[in-house]
Amino acid sequence: MKGKENSKENNQENKNSQMEPGGVNRRNGNSDRNNRMRRKPRPFKVERAANNNKVELTVPVVETPEPDAKPAVKIIPLGGLGQIGMNITAFEYQDSIIVVDCGLAFPEDEMLGIDLVIPDITYLKDNIQKVKGFVITHGHEDHIGSLPYVIKDINVPIYGTKLTLGIIENKLKEHNLLKSTKRKVIKYGQSINLGCFRIEFIRTNHSIADAAALAIYSPAGIIVHTGDFKVDYTPVFGETIDLQKFGELGKKGVLALMCDSTNVMRPGYTMSERTVGKTFDNIFAENSKHRIIVATFASNVDRVQQIINSAVKYNRKVVIEGRSMVNIMTTASELGYITVPDNVLIDIEQMKNYTDEQLVLITTGSQGESMAALSRMAASIHRKVSITPGDTVIFSSTPIPGNEKNVSKIINELSMKGAKVIFQDTHVSGHACQEEIKLIYALTKPKFAIPVHGEFRHLKCHAELAQDMGVKKDNVVLLTSGDVLSLSEDRAKIVDHIPAQGILVDGLGVGDVGNIVLRDRQHLSENGLIIVVVTLEKFSNQVLSGPDIVSRGFVYVRESENLMEEARTVVNDALDKCLNKNMTDWGKIKNEIKDSLSDYLWKKMKRNPMILPIIMEV
Amino acid sequence: MKGKENSKENNQENKNSQMEPGGVNRRNGNSDRNNRMRRKPRPFKVERAANNNKVELTVPVVETPEPDAKPAVKIIPLGGLGQIGMNITAFEYQDSIIVVDCGLAFPEDEMLGIDLVIPDITYLKDNIQKVKGFVITHGHEDHIGSLPYVIKDINVPIYGTKLTLGIIENKLKEHNLLKSTKRKVIKYGQSINLGCFRIEFIRTNHSIADAAALAIYSPAGIIVHTGDFKVDYTPVFGETIDLQKFGELGKKGVLALMCDSTNVMRPGYTMSERTVGKTFDNIFAENSKHRIIVATFASNVDRVQQIINSAVKYNRKVVIEGRSMVNIMTTASELGYITVPDNVLIDIEQMKNYTDEQLVLITTGSQGESMAALSRMAASIHRKVSITPGDTVIFSSTPIPGNEKNVSKIINELSMKGAKVIFQDTHVSGHACQEEIKLIYALTKPKFAIPVHGEFRHLKCHAELAQDMGVKKDNVVLLTSGDVLSLSEDRAKIVDHIPAQGILVDGLGVGDVGNIVLRDRQHLSENGLIIVVVTLEKFSNQVLSGPDIVSRGFVYVRESENLMEEARTVVNDALDKCLNKNMTDWGKIKNEIKDSLSDYLWKKMKRNPMILPIIMEV
Repeated sequence: MKGKENSKENNQENKNSQMEPGGVNRRNGNSDRNNRMRRKPRPFKVERAANNNKVELTVPVVETPEPDAKPAVKIIPLGGLGQIGMNITAFEYQDSIIVVDCGLAFPEDEMLGIDLVIPDITYLKDNIQKVKGFVITHGHEDHIGSLPYVIKDINVPIYGTKLTLGIIENKLKEHNLLKSTKRKVIKYGQSINLGCFRIEFIRTNHSIADAAALAIYSPAGIIVHTGDFKVDYTPVFGETIDLQKFGELGKKGVLALMCDSTNVMRPGYTMSERTVGKTFDNIFAENSKHRIIVATFASNVDRVQQIINSAVKYNRKVVIEGRSMVNIMTTASELGYITVPDNVLIDIEQMKNYTDEQLVLITTGSQGESMAALSRMAASIHRKVSITPGDTVIFSSTPIPGNEKNVSKIINELSMKGAKVIFQDTHVSGHACQEEIKLIYALTKPKFAIPVHGEFRHLKCHAELAQDMGVKKDNVVLLTSGDVLSLSEDRAKIVDHIPAQGILVDGLGVGDVGNIVLRDRQHLSENGLIIVVVTLEKFSNQVLSGPDIVSRGFVYVRESENLMEEARTVVNDALDKCLNKNMTDWGKIKNEIKDSLSDYLWKKMKRNPMILPIIMEV
Repeated sequence: MKGKENSKENNQENKNSQMEPGGVNRRNGNSDRNNRMRRKPRPFKVERAANNNKVELTVPVVETPEPDAKPAVKIIPLGGLGQIGMNITAFEYQDSIIVVDCGLAFPEDEMLGIDLVIPDITYLKDNIQKVKGFVITHGHEDHIGSLPYVIKDINVPIYGTKLTLGIIENKLKEHNLLKSTKRKVIKYGQSINLGCFRIEFIRTNHSIADAAALAIYSPAGIIVHTGDFKVDYTPVFGETIDLQKFGELGKKGVLALMCDSTNVMRPGYTMSERTVGKTFDNIFAENSKHRIIVATFASNVDRVQQIINSAVKYNRKVVIEGRSMVNIMTTASELGYITVPDNVLIDIEQMKNYTDEQLVLITTGSQGESMAALSRMAASIHRKVSITPGDTVIFSSTPIPGNEKNVSKIINELSMKGAKVIFQDTHVSGHACQEEIKLIYALTKPKFAIPVHGEFRHLKCHAELAQDMGVKKDNVVLLTSGDVLSLSEDRAKIVDHIPAQGILVDGLGVGDVGNIVLRDRQHLSENGLIIVVVTLEKFSNQVLSGPDIVSRGFVYVRESENLMEEARTVVNDALDKCLNKNMTDWGKIKNEIKDSLSDYLWKKMKRNPMILPIIMEV
């Protein structure tokens, strides 16, 4: 079935974009506007959800659609703006919605115990009949990771390039969703028609192969979405980003550019992936007597390819270690995105048959993740690999913000075991720096700039760059996740705001951990817990048993027996006071116990544990 | 009394170090060795505390003191090695111990709820009669912060330069320890005699004024301890580091150099503090219409001086905000370390009388600390200052590792409020980079190198630098906190290891939170808690009340009523099973309940809350 769809799609390949598929208005073609304006009156809500984070709107407010208003498309980021990760954006026109990407975010520090964060797709569920498909730019978690959660509710086809879909299929398989989900592989240069939108896939470079930018032909005009990208003139796999296409789109007229902001605060250019390969060659040459261990991102297939190239050059066997690394390498290899000569890869069990200078390990754990293979090696709890003096460990990565201390910890542990740790010139970013972003602006010359992928500081910096590149100040639109932007040839205006808080995933629970639970976890984590249990006689309110005090995470009880003894006295006194007053409201009794004990502990220790009084009735 | 001691000390000033005070052997002067060798036989334990983190000892093992052994001093870092912060090192010879610095460390991420970490001073307590004094290199928390805790047990005099002692006195005052603690101000070039040690204070540059290196004249030879330092040829306050003195010591013969490793992984030189002043001038000139807010480290008096200088130049009034900023500025100003022209400082209440372009705020919070003044401004919870569009906020700092995300958060919040945020060229480090460290090696030409202040990766990098500078490989000693190094002219040997785990401080509790408590906090923070309470009849074991289930931090109960209902059934079944078997061992009953519920929740939700069964007996 997939094959059939593919062949249908291949026939639609349309390199010159001359054809205007049904349902698509050319940006300047308003001829059929009148009979297409069957849309409901747009909800021109000017009030916004209470949101202090909003930038001032620079676009003039127009309360009602003017009679000669140009077609307006709605752009609704459900995530990814004002945050790193969880990229997902809906594009809506009349009865068509397409969704670009469907990523996850990793939990913030204060989201204790949370595994990951997925977008709130209530808006898509409420408009399910309109949603035509997911269009995916590339296979990174922050662009695909929520698909297995979202596709259960929004079961529409997924479109992406070959490797991107390969990685998505692995995910769907894990969630038993492969059979029930339609997918379609799209090639660079190909277009797909989804409702009134036509979407063309454009080759880009990134830290994962097969990344695509999108040209979204909408009734309002052409919107270019870069996805994550960089400009690599000498990529390891495939070709340079299709700059000609960006130029061609610019000539045609680009209504809006939605461009990657990740590295917008960095001047200059991002180096080519190929430069890292040269560093590997040098390191392999200089460390010819040592076992080499390279930690990198599992999804960076080109990086792994280069490590394998160096290994082949220096006659080393390669071991791939770490579950996600093995998974992606298998997919990349099956789909032809990585080339490994015969007899180079060996199983980890075979390592013992080779000497150190004959081996390279490529492993996960470059971010110091505590359960990844490298961390386990560093902590001496890896079952098959022990770090020994003389090992050369290369971090082919930079720490993602927040991971710095974990990475330092691993480096310290590796160094203490006598390993040589190398992390200089062993990584390049996958995102465009300022000059590359400017290049895309210079080629596309968009009327509107809508910076995407970044925290607010990135978006703001991007806004200044866009203005430097000639976009009018009023035409630079800084969005927050949940904003509903109405974009037409004439104007960009935020017309509504919908819920776009991330949904927390904890184990199998999706959305069942909210602020109250997190606040309790925070309280427990900082101060621990004291439970006071007492059994009362139902009618007389006589104390039958207790009060017993149990604590966890508060103080080491054996060393603080006096304290716990005094605490018991405080509770007894409070309880006596209540019962002497013939108090029968258990809520009040509990509060009295809680307050007395809390006061006592604060005075005595300047600590504030969670106190849970429990009254049992017999 | 302090004055009297000072004058005595001043008379001892001894710039040329020709005098050998009593109890001090010159490095090459062994003449009186024999009658000084009254020390107890050193405990030549070769076994080390189980410590996987140890580097191999490169010093040849000698089991018994040779008859002609040179005098050996013991160097015992009680903290600061293999970690950042909590710097404290004891130097011991026969009946004399001196302690260099007494710092604290901030808690690691996994130390939930902990306020700070102080050193384990059991060794000092056990040898209290030997301890002659604390010699402090400078007034940063990681060098002085534990004094109020330690001085209660080890009440010996504290020696330091004027500003250093001024800051220490503020701390002692807060802890009501000022009267009971002897202090003595020492000037650069001055020496003090403490037991058999003579300690000379040497001018250095650092990110706090009045920093000193120490030349420790010991019976084994001269040990130079740099403290934290950089080489600033154009310091803002005072003079350049006393390089001549380092050279002079080198000429005399330095047995060991204990040198700052903080920036040893950075090539080149650290820029002069003065370069930041130029940046301030430029920013003030370019932002002449806006209010300027500068966040920096409270203790960086020279930085504040430069901000004030720019303010004066551009006719702005200065507001100092944040408790620690106000405290240190008061001390620095009283002691003459900062010069503020009249009518420049204004109270925060007076701000309303001035326009934006007439104002500069200097504030704490440059590390994104959630309760610091800048964070409160950014979050709109500061009672006196609101961020408004047009404000120019300068971060005159770089994030300390681990604080990156907090700082980004504040930058985002400030940007969203329309502030312009500047953080480029607005900070220089206070620590020496590689070339400066090499300079100190070139001047002192030490026989032994003992890198200090740093995680293992820093120490290891420093070890390589020391070898490049001509120190023999076997003479580079990498220590871990708790190591007891025996150092003589002939050799450096780790002879023992004493406990040097940090002591955790939580509220008023010192050391009452240990691993069990922390593990419980971790468990609670990730998974929350379920309490199961049941009341049993004493003799019949009949259930009189319950089982009741209470949860916190686990799941939002109102939305999970079914789950809690099923959980209750699981508990009831487990309890019935036990009681039907006439089980009377409550421990076993509790375990049965715990295991059943735990299994159920893992299967159902893949979560693992802490489960606390409580049985009440009536």
